[in-house]
Amino acid sequence: MALNKGKSNGITDVKGVKVGHVTLYEKLDENKTICTGVTAILPHGDNLFHKKVRAGSAILNGYGKTTGLIQVEEIGLLESPVMLTNTFSVGAVWQGTLEYMLKTTKDIGDTTSSINIVVGECNDSYLNSIREQAIKPEHAIQAIKQATEKPVEEGAVGAGKGMVCFGYKGGIGTASRIISTGKDVYTLGCLVVSNFGKREEALFADWGKHKFDTPDGSIMMVIATDAPLYDRQLKRLAKRCAAGLGRTGSHLDNGSGDIAIAFSTANMHDHHTEVAAESMTYLRDDHEVMNQLFQAVVETTEEAVIRSLKMAETTHGRKGRYVEKAPL
Amino acid sequence: MALNKGKSNGITDVKGVKVGHVTLYEKLDENKTICTGVTAILPHGDNLFHKKVRAGSAILNGYGKTTGLIQVEEIGLLESPVMLTNTFSVGAVWQGTLEYMLKTTKDIGDTTSSINIVVGECNDSYLNSIREQAIKPEHAIQAIKQATEKPVEEGAVGAGKGMVCFGYKGGIGTASRIISTGKDVYTLGCLVVSNFGKREEALFADWGKHKFDTPDGSIMMVIATDAPLYDRQLKRLAKRCAAGLGRTGSHLDNGSGDIAIAFSTANMHDHHTEVAAESMTYLRDDHEVMNQLFQAVVETTEEAVIRSLKMAETTHGRKGRYVEKAPL
Amino acid sequence: MALNKGKSNGITDVKGVKVGHVTLYEKLDENKTICTGVTAILPHGDNLFHKKVRAGSAILNGYGKTTGLIQVEEIGLLESPVMLTNTFSVGAVWQGTLEYMLKTTKDIGDTTSSINIVVGECNDSYLNSIREQAIKPEHAIQAIKQATEKPVEEGAVGAGKGMVCFGYKGGIGTASRIISTGKDVYTLGCLVVSNFGKREEALFADWGKHKFDTPDGSIMMVIATDAPLYDRQLKRLAKRCAAGLGRTGSHLDNGSGDIAIAFSTANMHDHHTEVAAESMTYLRDDHEVMNQLFQAVVETTEEAVIRSLKMAETTHGRKGRYVEKAPL
Amino acid sequence: MALNKGKSNGITDVKGVKVGHVTLYEKLDENKTICTGVTAILPHGDNLFHKKVRAGSAILNGYGKTTGLIQVEEIGLLESPVMLTNTFSVGAVWQGTLEYMLKTTKDIGDTTSSINIVVGECNDSYLNSIREQAIKPEHAIQAIKQATEKPVEEGAVGAGKGMVCFGYKGGIGTASRIISTGKDVYTLGCLVVSNFGKREEALFADWGKHKFDTPDGSIMMVIATDAPLYDRQLKRLAKRCAAGLGRTGSHLDNGSGDIAIAFSTANMHDHHTEVAAESMTYLRDDHEVMNQLFQAVVETTEEAVIRSLKMAETTHGRKGRYVEKAPL
Repeated sequence: MALNKGKSNGITDVKGVKVGHVTLYEKLDENKTICTGVTAILPHGDNLFHKKVRAGSAILNGYGKTTGLIQVEEIGLLESPVMLTNTFSVGAVWQGTLEYMLKTTKDIGDTTSSINIVVGECNDSYLNSIREQAIKPEHAIQAIKQATEKPVEEGAVGAGKGMVCFGYKGGIGTASRIISTGKDVYTLGCLVVSNFGKREEALFADWGKHKFDTPDGSIMMVIATDAPLYDRQLKRLAKRCAAGLGRTGSHLDNGSGDIAIAFSTANMHDHHTEVAAESMTYLRDDHEVMNQLFQAVVETTEEAVIRSLKMAETTHGRKGRYVEKAPL
Repeated sequence: MALNKGKSNGITDVKGVKVGHVTLYEKLDENKTICTGVTAILPHGDNLFHKKVRAGSAILNGYGKTTGLIQVEEIGLLESPVMLTNTFSVGAVWQGTLEYMLKTTKDIGDTTSSINIVVGECNDSYLNSIREQAIKPEHAIQAIKQATEKPVEEGAVGAGKGMVCFGYKGGIGTASRIISTGKDVYTLGCLVVSNFGKREEALFADWGKHKFDTPDGSIMMVIATDAPLYDRQLKRLAKRCAAGLGRTGSHLDNGSGDIAIAFSTANMHDHHTEVAAESMTYLRDDHEVMNQLFQAVVETTEEAVIRSLKMAETTHGRKGRYVEKAPL
Repeated sequence: MALNKGKSNGITDVKGVKVGHVTLYEKLDENKTICTGVTAILPHGDNLFHKKVRAGSAILNGYGKTTGLIQVEEIGLLESPVMLTNTFSVGAVWQGTLEYMLKTTKDIGDTTSSINIVVGECNDSYLNSIREQAIKPEHAIQAIKQATEKPVEEGAVGAGKGMVCFGYKGGIGTASRIISTGKDVYTLGCLVVSNFGKREEALFADWGKHKFDTPDGSIMMVIATDAPLYDRQLKRLAKRCAAGLGRTGSHLDNGSGDIAIAFSTANMHDHHTEVAAESMTYLRDDHEVMNQLFQAVVETTEEAVIRSLKMAETTHGRKGRYVEKAPL
Repeated sequence: MALNKGKSNGITDVKGVKVGHVTLYEKLDENKTICTGVTAILPHGDNLFHKKVRAGSAILNGYGKTTGLIQVEEIGLLESPVMLTNTFSVGAVWQGTLEYMLKTTKDIGDTTSSINIVVGECNDSYLNSIREQAIKPEHAIQAIKQATEKPVEEGAVGAGKGMVCFGYKGGIGTASRIISTGKDVYTLGCLVVSNFGKREEALFADWGKHKFDTPDGSIMMVIATDAPLYDRQLKRLAKRCAAGLGRTGSHLDNGSGDIAIAFSTANMHDHHTEVAAESMTYLRDDHEVMNQLFQAVVETTEEAVIRSLKMAETTHGRKGRYVEKAPL
């Protein structure tokens, strides 16, 4: 059954979800160019530590440096924005995000527990002088503050600024689908940072003639939905990203960190409460709506990758290198 | 880079690997038909307990009843044939396989340790009167004894006899690829029992017009290679089956047990020895041959699914039902 | 904080939980003795397929042949009794349990989906002529039918008949604890089949002087509670069995299948329904009651092991062997 | 069988392993005290990126923020020091470690791949003004540079400076054991940062009378050995830390990040090479030496926790709080 796309065909179609980009682009000298950025995905606009969201993840190929998933898996909750950046800026973005959360949440680390920060990354070192570590903690804070519910800017922007996908310029891509139980209507969106693949591998285009070799890259995939699902079910969603990736032509190469994170904006979890027991509503795994959600994950992952190519412009980087806009 | 197919384009292109089918097909009455079977995959023709092979697995969707993977994951070794059958015959096939191994290996359970039996399954109850449990332990033994290195019989045969895939007759499919380091040449093969998907989901055909609803099915995927890999690496291979599945159009539906097992015929492991330390040779994860192996898994999984359809004939089953040959 | 024991200090203190044993004991000839059995644990007395319970598991050491955990992990539900037996009877017990479920549930495999059977095992081949495979499917059915809410019979009985623990006679042991939120009171019980350890390893006794060598064994641990927990949380419970094991002196030896399964009798899940969404109540992970539940798991696992020794009598088995009652 | 302790009963008994501490301790005002640090564990003294070591990990309870384990699990290699610090300094220590590795390894992120940084943490906010984030990247670099093969300084030092264990002053503890195959002799060492438990839970002391409530803490456990083991086997070692923890009295409380990392200094892996295939020697899982290694993990984990208490002095921290030396 065909699924309809959301209003803006992007992750911010899921009510409350906000995305913010900070992009750095500067030629330092003949050999060095800063061509990178940060992207922040906020499940909602309130304090994320106080109102946590249910989440799950899937390590499709673990050649990656994403932080925070150990606790997401144990507790089933996300309590920070999902931050995306380049491989060598994980520390800086982790630090900036912590600083933002500490500033806006006075009790963390004082009268209440610690906080878990989720940062994902891809390696943009083909174009970006990644050893320069141009991203600073304040860029992470800025990305969070700039986050908006508006349609997501795609292509060579934010964390996607320096990424390369199927030998053409990749970066940020997003897509969404509408799912219905007949009675209730839900939205699911995917946002990717695409940075993998070789021209001859693309299944959605015929690019085999002109080779263009870049190292194994990676892809970060973030799934958001307002469907009421809990951690185990969100992990199931995250795992389906593998099929969407497969559709594009990916083989999940050795050096590619292919990592998916899924969260639901339903069933938020209050940090502060005295109650022992909570209630939650969730969709049954065996209801047909679950297969629609799976389908939505597969379709939006595939489409988000393709859109990351379509929306990206030819970009020049370090050592005189440039990566062309995909002929799509 | 395009990969060449093996000589027979099947899992038995991997030297030493043997496959045996037992097929049961009998109309019992108006409502009941036995339409099922067993397929045995032997990594080699010698005693599998005495000469174990390295193995890994991946649970792509765990709605399945496969036995034996707990120990494969812990120890990284396979010490029995990989047996495939219908969901309600797991016990009988487990039993028959154990009996075969006990008969041919006098020390198991007497002077040495126990044995771990691997049985995978799909649910063929659309066509097969699965509650009849027609498969007996002796059918498993027979499948093992009949196993041969010859090209694999595909389609509605063995464990594939009653399976339905993308709304057409599915079953056993296989494919293989040749991989090379430049210096050494390796073969990788995949065998599937296909039993999943709806007509409108197929990406390799345009079957959306005529719906044909069957319940969520499953797929068992077995990868064999003579490339020297160890358990962690074989698990990596098994995980790539998800991308192959995604290419066919699968969304890894809720009720589908999508399970992959990979083994290598290199680096066999002797059960009986006094030595404390062993040596093994393995391919580096970061050598380009590993990406070729991943590509081979993706391609053979996809092709094995399509071949399972191409090679299967229209089949009649219980309650007057029948499933048509796919128009491929 | 010290936790109180339940009324009978056993798993059947959890309301509704039933346990049934079938014990086989017969000297066949000078060398052969049947000394084995089956134990069935029923989360409740109704149809388990129609009213499933939430469950999770932990593979503490995966040298074991337990079936059914793949689906428990994926779906978070248990839909059959938890069956325990010897290593070579997994097939027969699986078969008998399936037959029982098919007989009492006419729609399985006909108009509704398949069923997932959970069978755990330890290797009793030191005393039991395990190659004889004396357990038949009917013994599993009998164990299920005989299951009762009465205090559990412990020691050399049921699946524990032939087991050896810390070089003395082990087998079935159980223990329970009462946990309270201040407002609500819950019970948690553990049942083990103990079959591991060497005399000099026991931390609860001083048995180092007289060595008695048996091969690495295993331990199956089943946790039941009426506390409202869901799958992820039940997996957390199951993982704590490792600490209980550690307290007894176990090193989780190489050849020991150390596997834990935890279920909750709260929040049962109806198989048949048309609704898309369900509600459930669950205890917060960060409420102090959760740490009490963890404590209860650790304490009952340790105590159940010790009780399995205390309650077991000296037992004679194959090849003229015997294992003495522990001096406890 | 009793195992002998190594020469200094610490992780640096494993030849080549180096440990370095940086300790920060300063009273800022009435309410604020910096009482924290960094500990670096280097598997060997050469470039860790160029000569990687085999590694595995186990998440015993995932309420923790450790970075880098996703890639360790996928590739089975460790290519950075194992860094330990407080929860809010993960970013700074990650950053400092990256800077150190970039400075000493010019090809990373330029002509070769990225690098994976492993940082573990416990929450020292009972004593330490953790929100001040006193740890800077240079402290991580300093800890690495100061690392030495000498016997490890224990107690309230390095990452252990502000930690609390069983209601008394905890911190760094270490222990080692000698294992032998009869022919070859190996050493295994454990280093912990202890920060968990309540007085009444300790099994090695009778401290129940005087309660002293601190929040759930955490424990980081690092296992080093020169025994030739590969990733899957090292993961098995890491899992056994749970039994050692259980012996001390831990229940692996909800808010405790209980995380174990194990590496072997045998079988190092060269980053730069053109070869496709490598050889390695490894100990058989079924040789008795493996059970000795498991025993060594359990014993050293338990002993390292106790030593972390024994060696720590009464320490004063923020808000006028202090934690007493354990009466051991």
